[in-house]
Amino acid sequence: MQEGSLLAAVDLGSNSFRLEIGQLQGKQIVRRDYLKEPVRLGAGLNEARQLSRGAMQRGAECLARFAERLRGFPAGQIRAVATQTLREAVNRDEFLELARDALGYDVEVISGREEARLIYSGVSHLLADPNEQRLVIDIGGRSTEVIVGHGLKPLEAESFKLGSVSYSLRYFDAGRFPRAGFEQAIIAVAAEVEDSIETFQRYAWRMAYGSSGTAGALADILRSNRITDGTITLDGLLWLREQCERAGHIDKLRIEGLKEDRRPVLAGGLAVMLGMFEALGLQEMEAARGALRHGVMFDLLGRERIETDMRNGTVRRLQQRFASDQVHSQRVQDLALSLYRRLVPMSVEPLLVEAERELGWAALLHELGMCISHSDYHRHGAYLVEHADAPGFSESQQARLAALVLGHRGGLKKLEPWLADPRFVEQLMVLRLAVILVHARRKLPNGVFTLTRGEKTVHLALDPDWAASHPQTLYLLSEEAAAWKRAGVRVVLD
Amino acid sequence: MQEGSLLAAVDLGSNSFRLEIGQLQGKQIVRRDYLKEPVRLGAGLNEARQLSRGAMQRGAECLARFAERLRGFPAGQIRAVATQTLREAVNRDEFLELARDALGYDVEVISGREEARLIYSGVSHLLADPNEQRLVIDIGGRSTEVIVGHGLKPLEAESFKLGSVSYSLRYFDAGRFPRAGFEQAIIAVAAEVEDSIETFQRYAWRMAYGSSGTAGALADILRSNRITDGTITLDGLLWLREQCERAGHIDKLRIEGLKEDRRPVLAGGLAVMLGMFEALGLQEMEAARGALRHGVMFDLLGRERIETDMRNGTVRRLQQRFASDQVHSQRVQDLALSLYRRLVPMSVEPLLVEAERELGWAALLHELGMCISHSDYHRHGAYLVEHADAPGFSESQQARLAALVLGHRGGLKKLEPWLADPRFVEQLMVLRLAVILVHARRKLPNGVFTLTRGEKTVHLALDPDWAASHPQTLYLLSEEAAAWKRAGVRVVLD
Repeated sequence: MQEGSLLAAVDLGSNSFRLEIGQLQGKQIVRRDYLKEPVRLGAGLNEARQLSRGAMQRGAECLARFAERLRGFPAGQIRAVATQTLREAVNRDEFLELARDALGYDVEVISGREEARLIYSGVSHLLADPNEQRLVIDIGGRSTEVIVGHGLKPLEAESFKLGSVSYSLRYFDAGRFPRAGFEQAIIAVAAEVEDSIETFQRYAWRMAYGSSGTAGALADILRSNRITDGTITLDGLLWLREQCERAGHIDKLRIEGLKEDRRPVLAGGLAVMLGMFEALGLQEMEAARGALRHGVMFDLLGRERIETDMRNGTVRRLQQRFASDQVHSQRVQDLALSLYRRLVPMSVEPLLVEAERELGWAALLHELGMCISHSDYHRHGAYLVEHADAPGFSESQQARLAALVLGHRGGLKKLEPWLADPRFVEQLMVLRLAVILVHARRKLPNGVFTLTRGEKTVHLALDPDWAASHPQTLYLLSEEAAAWKRAGVRVVLD
Repeated sequence: MQEGSLLAAVDLGSNSFRLEIGQLQGKQIVRRDYLKEPVRLGAGLNEARQLSRGAMQRGAECLARFAERLRGFPAGQIRAVATQTLREAVNRDEFLELARDALGYDVEVISGREEARLIYSGVSHLLADPNEQRLVIDIGGRSTEVIVGHGLKPLEAESFKLGSVSYSLRYFDAGRFPRAGFEQAIIAVAAEVEDSIETFQRYAWRMAYGSSGTAGALADILRSNRITDGTITLDGLLWLREQCERAGHIDKLRIEGLKEDRRPVLAGGLAVMLGMFEALGLQEMEAARGALRHGVMFDLLGRERIETDMRNGTVRRLQQRFASDQVHSQRVQDLALSLYRRLVPMSVEPLLVEAERELGWAALLHELGMCISHSDYHRHGAYLVEHADAPGFSESQQARLAALVLGHRGGLKKLEPWLADPRFVEQLMVLRLAVILVHARRKLPNGVFTLTRGEKTVHLALDPDWAASHPQTLYLLSEEAAAWKRAGVRVVLD
C-alpha cells in the first residue's frame, strides 16, 4: 500500500461501536478520525440468544452514521469486524444484513481467538519495545481475551465468555451491589478461566497491559482519585471495590473520573478484572493505547501481498495438523487457479483478488476431512474448516471456505443459499472441475482442455484423443454438467 | 469364553438377513445353525432414503422368526449388525426399534469400514494359511467392501456405495438388459472407486477372495455350466455377461446354477464384479466361505477380555491422531471409573461391563475436540467421535460415546433424548463429576470425597478442610447440582 493511503477499521463491540480511520506513514498508522458510540449491543441479547429488534436498530443507526465518513472508501482498505455478541446471537444473519446495508461494507464475525490475536497485534504495534515479552488482557462487553506474546508475535491466545456487560447483568442486577456480588463474580471468573489459564502461567512476562474500555476506565478512576499514577494495581482495584460496596448502588457511587456511559458496566468490568488479577497472580497493569481496531488495520496491511498474508500459514498448518495429502491438494490448487484465470479475467480489484485466494485455500483444504473418515469426508472437512482456530480468517470467511469444501463433490442442493452468489458459483465450479480432471491423482498433461465462457454458459472442450482414452473422466464430467443443469447453470462439454 | 460356548451373529444385510449360531471349539467356531431369508430390505429404500413400511415389516417378521431360535441366548454372546441400507435410511431409528422388539436384542448399525474389517476377519479366520497376503471383495446389496490384508490383519479397508441391489435397480430396470447397461454400470463402478482404489493397487496379494452372495452365486453358475471349476475368472464373467445380453431380459435367462432368489439382482452384482475386476486388474478370484457374520462372532470372542478388546486400541489411536492430552484424560478416566464403581456395584453382567468400558473410553476422549478449537471443544469432540473411523465400534456405540463427550460439560438440555436411559445418566454423571473434581488438572488427594447412592438421589460428601480451600470446585459442584435439578435428578452435596 502506498505511503499516505487511508485505512479504516470498524469494531462492532458488545459495549461500543468504534470507527477508526488511519493513514499509513512509514511503518505506522496515524489516526485521521475516530468515532465511538455506546451502542451496548450485548445488553440486547436475551437468554435464548436472540438479539432484540431494538438493539439491531441502535446498531444499524450507528453504522449509518459511520457510513457517512466512509463513503467511497476503497473496499480493500476497510474491514468491519463483530465480536462476542454476534458470535452468540442466533439471529445474527438478520443483523449482518441490516449492518451491511447501513454501513455499505460487509461485516465479518471473528472468532474469540482471532479477536485475541488482532488485539495483541494492535497493542503491540503501538508499543515501543520490539522485544518485550508481555501479557495483554482485553475485558470487553461479553468476552475477555488473554494473550501472552513476544514483540509482535502472540505465543498463546484465549478468549473467555465473560465481560463487563454480561457480568454486570448477572451479578449486579439493576445496579445493586449485593454483599456477595463481587465474591461470587470473582469465583465465577476463576472457574471459567481455570481450564486454560495454566497455559499462560507457564510464561514469564515483563509487563501486563489492559486494552479497551474497562482497563481505560479503571486507569482513569485510579488516576483521578490519586490512588495511582494511572497504573491499575491490585490495591487500587480493591479500593474501588470497597467504594462500590459502600455506595450500595451504582447510582449512589460518587467518584472522580467515572464517565456516565461507563457507569452501568463498571462493577462487572471491575469484578472480571479482579478475577483475572487473581487467576494470573498480577500485581499491576498498564492501560494500553492499541486495541482490536488497530490490529485490524495492521492486518489489512499484511494481507496486501500474498507472501505476507498470514492466512497462507494458517492453511498450511491446518493441512499439517490434520495430515492432508499435500501433493494432491497442491495439484488441485494449481489446476483450479489456472481454470479460474481462464474464467475470470485477471484483476487487481480487491474482491476478485480475495475470491482467487479463497479458491486456492479451499483447494488446499478440500481433502482435510479424510483424517476423520473417507466416508463423507467433504462434510467432515467442511466441519473442520468452519470450526478450527484459523488465525487471520473471520468466521464468515471460514464459513465460505467450508461451503466450498462441502460442495467440492456430490450434489449441489446442499449449497442452495450460497448459489445465489455468482462469485461463489465461479469458485465452486472451477474447484469441482479441477477435482474431476485430476481425479486419478496424476498431473494433467498440458493442453488437454480449454475453458471458455459464453453469455450464460461455460464451455469445457477436451482434446478428443485424450478424452477417448479417459472414459471415466468423461462420465464424471457429464454427471457434473447434469448436476449444474439441475441448479440452473449451463455447462457445455465438447 | 468356555470351550463349547455358543455364539450368535445376526446380519441384517440389504439383500438377505442371516442368523448364524456357532460353538466354540478350540480356536474355531463350528456352525450349529444357519438361517437365511431374502428380505431385500435395500429395495425398500426410496430416493429420499425413506425405508418403506413394507420393507420394515418384512424385516421385523424375519427377525421374529430368528428370535425363536435365540430365546434365552446370553447377551454377551450375541451381536446383531446392520449395514448399508440402514446406514442410509433417514428413518432408521423407527426400524431399529421394531427390530429390537422383534429380535429381543439390540441391532447395531456399523460403518462401511467397520463392516469391511469384520468381513476380512470372517474370511481370514476360515482360511488355512495364516501368512497369506490377500484381497477380499464383498459385493453386498447396496455396498461393496474391499480389503487387502496379511493373515488375520487387515492392511487397508474401504467401503463403496455400490451393490447388487442398487445397481440392478439403476442399470437393469425391470429386469431388462439394455444395450449399454453393462457398459454404463462398469464405468460408474470405476468412477466411484477410482478415488481410493490406488491404495489397494500399491499392495501385492497372493489370492483374491469374493465373499457373500454375489460371489457365491457367480461361482455356482460358472461351475454348473462347466465354464470353470468354480473359480470366478474374468473370462467366465464376460461369458455370463454375454448370456445376459443375448437373453435381453432376466426372465428369459435360462442358465444352470442360478437360484431364483438371486435372479433379480444378478445383473447388478455381475456389473459390479466386472467393474472391480477391471479397477483392480484381476484375472481370477475364489469364493470365500467366511463372511461378515463370522467376523462378528470372532469379534465377540476378542471383546471378552479388556486386553483383547480392539476398541481400546482404536481409542488410543484416536487420542494420538487428534493430539489429545493423554495425561489429563487418563486422570479423568481413573477418577470416573472409581466414582462409577461406588455408584454401580461391580458386575459381570455383560451390559454393565460394557457400560463401564464406554465410560472409560468417553473419559479418554472427552477433550478430543481441542485439536479443532478450545471454544466449544466438547461439540467438536462429539463430532469427531461420532464420525471418525473407529474399528470395533458400531455407529450406535459411537453415537453414545459422542453424546457422553458432548455432555461432559455445559447444560444438559442438549442431551434430552439420552437422559431417558438410566445407564446413560449414571455414566454421564460420574464423567461430569470427575471432570469437575480434577478441573485444576491435578490428581485429587485420596479420601477427599465419598459418593453414595440414595433411593432417588446421589450424595457427594467432601472433606470439609479440602472443600474450604477449593471454593471454585465447590462453586462448580453447586452449579452441577443445579443443572441436574433442572433435568429432574437430585444430586446432594454435603
